Amino acid sequence: MNLHTLKLVTIVAESVLESHLLDEITKLGARGYTTTNVHGEGSRGVRAGVAEGNVKVETVVGAEVADRILQHVADTYFQYYAVVAYVSEVQVVRGEKYV
Amino acid sequence: MNLHTLKLVTIVAESVLESHLLDEITKLGARGYTTTNVHGEGSRGVRAGVAEGNVKVETVVGAEVADRILQHVADTYFQYYAVVAYVSEVQVVRGEKYV
Amino acid sequence: MNLHTLKLVTIVAESVLESHLLDEITKLGARGYTTTNVHGEGSRGVRAGVAEGNVKVETVVGAEVADRILQHVADTYFQYYAVVAYVSEVQVVRGEKYV
Repeated sequence: MNLHTLKLVTIVAESVLESHLLDEITKLGARGYTTTNVHGEGSRGVRAGVAEGNVKVETVVGAEVADRILQHVADTYFQYYAVVAYVSEVQVVRGEKYV
Repeated sequence: MNLHTLKLVTIVAESVLESHLLDEITKLGARGYTTTNVHGEGSRGVRAGVAEGNVKVETVVGAEVADRILQHVADTYFQYYAVVAYVSEVQVVRGEKYV
Repeated sequence: MNLHTLKLVTIVAESVLESHLLDEITKLGARGYTTTNVHGEGSRGVRAGVAEGNVKVETVVGAEVADRILQHVADTYFQYYAVVAYVSEVQVVRGEKYV
């Protein structure tokens, strides 16, 4: 089995930000993504975006694109929005599709 | 990009346990969480909690809180409930929010 | 806390494939799984299976079963379907349930 080590970037944010986030990560180099409707509560003790719920955006990318996405999310959203962003390592089949 | 290595704890359980689990992981030190409605089938060949479905609870925490949560879940639920619990490593932006 | 290192296999595919995938991964050795309704867009720029949405299938298995599942998914679906498959490491409580 020929596997490629790539990065799984996960972003959890208010659903109102979804289309912005998807546009932005695509421009930053993501070639695909998965979105899931989720609920969340953050460290400030208030439910974030309760009216429309939250969205989890996941994308498998190379290390450089992962860094770019996290940097962008931090710079753009962290001051005013309850956004969570993290990265982990995954081993992917057909890795050339993602980079 | 300044990233912190933390633990992502994932618990999948019957939805009837959701509010208990969220209270408990908060008391054990989790400062936020994400919940997702999921379906699951366990190793006993029966669908767990089919009436209300299952819930996936995810929380990013430090290593000590992760251990505490897993220990609590094992001690409290494993004998009578079809609960799955695991931990993985993630790299988080703005890690000081989580510990 | 006695933890076992296992593999978390994640497959994202059109929802029409869900029952096939679940049957197949069970035959290949998975003893349980979680499914989530998700949305996705792949690297070809077309939304995959938009009519019925996509499904994310997750299963915690040993390394050998993980390889078998990824190989099967690659051989069976990659030519004609927009399927994403990857594996990561997780540490599991009560690992003997999964292998």
